[in-house]
Amino acid sequence: MNPVTFQGVLAARRIVYQYLKPTPLIHYPELSELFGFRAYIKHENHQPTGSFKVRGGLNFMSQLPADQRERGVITATRGNHGGSIAYAAKQFGVHATIVVPHGNNPEKNSAMRAFGAELIEHGVDFDESRELCEKLQTERGLRYVHPADEPPLFHGVGTYSLEIFEDLPEVDTIIVAIGAGSGACGVITVARAINPNVNVIGVQAENAPSVYRSWMVGEKIETDSANTVADGLATRVTFDLPFSILKDGISQIVLVSEGEIREAIRMALRYTHNLIEGAAAAPIAAARKLKAELADQNVAMVMSGANLDTETLRWVLGKE
Amino acid sequence: MNPVTFQGVLAARRIVYQYLKPTPLIHYPELSELFGFRAYIKHENHQPTGSFKVRGGLNFMSQLPADQRERGVITATRGNHGGSIAYAAKQFGVHATIVVPHGNNPEKNSAMRAFGAELIEHGVDFDESRELCEKLQTERGLRYVHPADEPPLFHGVGTYSLEIFEDLPEVDTIIVAIGAGSGACGVITVARAINPNVNVIGVQAENAPSVYRSWMVGEKIETDSANTVADGLATRVTFDLPFSILKDGISQIVLVSEGEIREAIRMALRYTHNLIEGAAAAPIAAARKLKAELADQNVAMVMSGANLDTETLRWVLGKE
Repeated sequence: MNPVTFQGVLAARRIVYQYLKPTPLIHYPELSELFGFRAYIKHENHQPTGSFKVRGGLNFMSQLPADQRERGVITATRGNHGGSIAYAAKQFGVHATIVVPHGNNPEKNSAMRAFGAELIEHGVDFDESRELCEKLQTERGLRYVHPADEPPLFHGVGTYSLEIFEDLPEVDTIIVAIGAGSGACGVITVARAINPNVNVIGVQAENAPSVYRSWMVGEKIETDSANTVADGLATRVTFDLPFSILKDGISQIVLVSEGEIREAIRMALRYTHNLIEGAAAAPIAAARKLKAELADQNVAMVMSGANLDTETLRWVLGKE
Repeated sequence: MNPVTFQGVLAARRIVYQYLKPTPLIHYPELSELFGFRAYIKHENHQPTGSFKVRGGLNFMSQLPADQRERGVITATRGNHGGSIAYAAKQFGVHATIVVPHGNNPEKNSAMRAFGAELIEHGVDFDESRELCEKLQTERGLRYVHPADEPPLFHGVGTYSLEIFEDLPEVDTIIVAIGAGSGACGVITVARAINPNVNVIGVQAENAPSVYRSWMVGEKIETDSANTVADGLATRVTFDLPFSILKDGISQIVLVSEGEIREAIRMALRYTHNLIEGAAAAPIAAARKLKAELADQNVAMVMSGANLDTETLRWVLGKE
């Protein structure tokens, strides 16, 4: 039984809208001309944490039993999942401990601290942070919020997909980046219920293709590294719950290079005047590669997050 | 009799919400720590045209008599007013002719063209474009949409102020940049009706201080130049309708330097992860100067627009 359901998304919406407004789905005429399809962007970068994940964190926290709220939560993150948990914990008066790898995006770190979270720096990458986190949950008696295998997170983030269908019922294709995969699973869950003919296209970084490879062979594959400017996509492993949904639910997965991601960040600045992080640029990068296939369609690209630090912005602008 | 009324704003809201979603008012913990007051930002930069003005354009177009809709409209702009008129004209099936000065922001120009407007480049600055425009309205029989002296524009843009009060009824101070002045007049109109104790602070560029000087002496003053990176503030003249409202309605007007505006653009990138244009940064620049006065207050800063072109962004980042 798949624990992620359309009903769960509808229930999450009641919670999410107590804290957040729906984000806009904007049609961009210039991008449409350039791409040869009607280009719409779902602006999850406009969320208060600068990422779609906050929808999931709020829904998760609303379902947490009272004793766990009192003991507090712990999680591991490259930033956006942690920002979501920190933000939601604050709304619900819960203590949040968050483990990040050394050298993590400093702007994401300080934002999590400002939301009141306790930050621990540990490990060289996300997966090492996650390992410490799994150890600390037992030692400190905290509720570990798994970054992927938690249905309430999926239901929460699924609410943006519902908004896409409400604003553009005639959508043909939705393009969404895949990190841990909760965003893509939300899209699949909602599309299946509303219009199973909608094409759901996933995007991963060439440098962090674990889900792509797993999807190709039909079983979970781990990669040795995940070095991409799109820190939201930088995971070496494929998680159980998202993989069980993505396996048959996604129409295709496209890989994009580091250069293509940087170019898409610059296109977003130029054509939409939005500052976005690498993961949020990945759908634009993929859409460019799929122009022929998507011709004349209504295409919604999920702009999943805004959290690009100024140093990386300078670097991306300098690489043109 | 002041033709700009709270009732007019309420009526405009019915129109505006047929096309646009309310924008978020977001609390930023890091900015709050830095400034020593509760810092909220009203994200008008999230509008589909990248500017608050679209609210006014839609309301204006909805009230246009059928014969004028058929003949078409004309206006002059540095970009955001024109973007608003181009966008709204397209929604209502009206032909829009738009006059911009030579050397105008190229990204704003191409966005207006993509919305279907006919663009004419004329004059060295906004005021020269405006003069041609006033001439062409007679020659071509077009309805001239004055950039400032049109009550429906004020009522439309006033709807964002309503949203500020709905999201934060306990707001103490609202800081808003003044170009032609429609945004500030919307704030004043709504604040007067809902809570006259709210402090409405205007901001102008030191390099384009016409409204500031007019307000100081109590009569309209024209300046010789208006050279500022904040093109939304680059007007040499003070217009009748906004001046009649600002004269007694604004609590104070603060001038900010070019360096302060650039620094505020960088702060917005760093602390809010939003790309914003100079005019939208001016309230942040002013807030920094008024830290002592605003201590512990609930302060809403209007982030009026996103339309910073990539070349200017590079330049602003390089000036740090």
